[in-house]
Amino acid sequence: MLNQERMNRVLEKLDADAMLVSDPLAIKYLCGKMIWPGERFLGLLIQNGKEPVLFVNSLFRFEEELGVRKVYFQDTDNVTELVKKEIRKDIVLGVDKILPARFLLPMIEQGIAKGFINGSLAVDHTRAIKDAAEIALMKEASLINDRAMAEFKKLIHAGVTEKEVAAETLGIYKKLGAEGYSFPPIVAFGKNAADPHHMPDATVLQEGDAVLFDVGCKYHGYCSDMTRTFFYKKEPTAEQKNIYNLVRRANEEAEAIIKPGVRLCDIDKTARDIITEGGYGPDFTHRLGHFIGTECHEYGDVSQAFTDLTQPGNIFSIEPGIYHPSILGCRIEDLVLVTEDGHEVLNHYPHDIEIIE
Amino acid sequence: MLNQERMNRVLEKLDADAMLVSDPLAIKYLCGKMIWPGERFLGLLIQNGKEPVLFVNSLFRFEEELGVRKVYFQDTDNVTELVKKEIRKDIVLGVDKILPARFLLPMIEQGIAKGFINGSLAVDHTRAIKDAAEIALMKEASLINDRAMAEFKKLIHAGVTEKEVAAETLGIYKKLGAEGYSFPPIVAFGKNAADPHHMPDATVLQEGDAVLFDVGCKYHGYCSDMTRTFFYKKEPTAEQKNIYNLVRRANEEAEAIIKPGVRLCDIDKTARDIITEGGYGPDFTHRLGHFIGTECHEYGDVSQAFTDLTQPGNIFSIEPGIYHPSILGCRIEDLVLVTEDGHEVLNHYPHDIEIIE
Repeated sequence: MLNQERMNRVLEKLDADAMLVSDPLAIKYLCGKMIWPGERFLGLLIQNGKEPVLFVNSLFRFEEELGVRKVYFQDTDNVTELVKKEIRKDIVLGVDKILPARFLLPMIEQGIAKGFINGSLAVDHTRAIKDAAEIALMKEASLINDRAMAEFKKLIHAGVTEKEVAAETLGIYKKLGAEGYSFPPIVAFGKNAADPHHMPDATVLQEGDAVLFDVGCKYHGYCSDMTRTFFYKKEPTAEQKNIYNLVRRANEEAEAIIKPGVRLCDIDKTARDIITEGGYGPDFTHRLGHFIGTECHEYGDVSQAFTDLTQPGNIFSIEPGIYHPSILGCRIEDLVLVTEDGHEVLNHYPHDIEIIE
Repeated sequence: MLNQERMNRVLEKLDADAMLVSDPLAIKYLCGKMIWPGERFLGLLIQNGKEPVLFVNSLFRFEEELGVRKVYFQDTDNVTELVKKEIRKDIVLGVDKILPARFLLPMIEQGIAKGFINGSLAVDHTRAIKDAAEIALMKEASLINDRAMAEFKKLIHAGVTEKEVAAETLGIYKKLGAEGYSFPPIVAFGKNAADPHHMPDATVLQEGDAVLFDVGCKYHGYCSDMTRTFFYKKEPTAEQKNIYNLVRRANEEAEAIIKPGVRLCDIDKTARDIITEGGYGPDFTHRLGHFIGTECHEYGDVSQAFTDLTQPGNIFSIEPGIYHPSILGCRIEDLVLVTEDGHEVLNHYPHDIEIIE
């Protein structure tokens, strides 16, 4: 059913006369119905004072009333013409950031509006402020992730490969009540931990390896995402400990400054300065964090370039890392909620150095 | 490594001066490297007589030489500016059909080219003609799918749910040598078979149910896709048999006319006429088939609107269906290869009515 309050928040923020939302998750957010159209067109047209219109392929016909007018079309219909009929030619039309060129270019060519802008910010800014029900689900998803991490650690033993460990994680999530992954799990041993996007492969665990888990699950459609880096059988070297503790401090000191009204770039800076002063600045190769919700990566960065201020209801990751192939690859990541007067870290799995025996 | 022959075929077909390919699978097709950038930009710029340029986020840095010039960027860099530097302002730029509005709109606004067209057809038409190596892999993927169908049938027993059956399919595919699904399997019992895109749920199998499997796997990156409709415990009724046999005839007579130079819409018509003359035209609610390769749905339809001629090396599905909620939902689907002088059906699992006991 149409969520009028969310819709109003989007329309208020919109810099255009109408908005054609095409991201299935944004459409679900606004009218409560998940439709996955594959390569076919799907659009929710919203404009002030008019009934929203949902354009949906007849293949996905449904009876449910959503409080929107449905316009069905066949594979052979011209989608551009259908949208054209529903809007005035002299308006500026906001389109979704993910609207593919194959739909956007014909709309521009046929001049169905006088101007086109990326209108997704209005939706994204709305989605970035979670309401109470969303926060409750995100907390539960992260609690499941905490419990799962303790189980994943038990999968580590002599002779095991990354792939074998990764293959067990889905079952553990499901047993703990999650419906599935929020993203394919990263399990990285030794040098592989120094590749931030390593995919689990046939690498066999060795004594002294770092063991990195970057993992998350979904709970009622909401995502968790956490990283911990363990050591296998051997005490880390002094250099490794130094890197680990820099990453840990970067994580904890960045988290400590989070409250409403802080520039997201300043949170990144807090972590980055610690790593840079420790001499590993060039080995921290990515942003500090990303917003998260029904998608694992939602609009909003904790990065040097992102100057927006935090607001109550924001949830994002804090995930500093140092990737030094010959010493250690290490990342420590939590999800953090901005509250009315501070913050709440949604992950509770400890940050201490842990040696798996 | 850059596949110069494929690249030349694309450039020959291109109605623009340059093409910015952004589909990761198209980039893999052209230069042999799979990069999955998530929400980040990825682009391969190709133009006649110039070295191709690959724009890739530093997060996905790699050492491998591909025969293209790599331009790395950070999350904080302006991608539009980077692409602008590599092309002349007075050209028409082909962009990928899936290029998202968030990248396309700034390119248009900043006028980095004098015109923009959807250039994907040049890539898609090239990908639609499989070479010998691709055909070999597609055949193997479909052979695995044939064998898997025989195994899936064994999962059907009293009291089982669609979800429970679906949960076993991945393991069977892997045991048979596939690397995974080409799409999430459809397992539909009874009335659910009358929903062409039904997702497996907690529905419990009943005597007399139709049991529809629409399933596919990937083998070395290439997809299979096949549908069979069985019956559980009871002989189908006369009305059900009539529907089943109409679908079967539609499938087999459409397949029979396939050879080079046939209009794809005429293949659709052959099947559709049989179903329409049988009185179930309105219950065949989708196109007859789709092209397939490294993606399960690639460019190219077997539909009323698609007038292109078949060419040797095309591979597409033939999947007529009748979806009548109170009598039967039934679909029979094979993949078919267009050969130099006819066709080859890549699936060998029989079309006969089968009653699972």
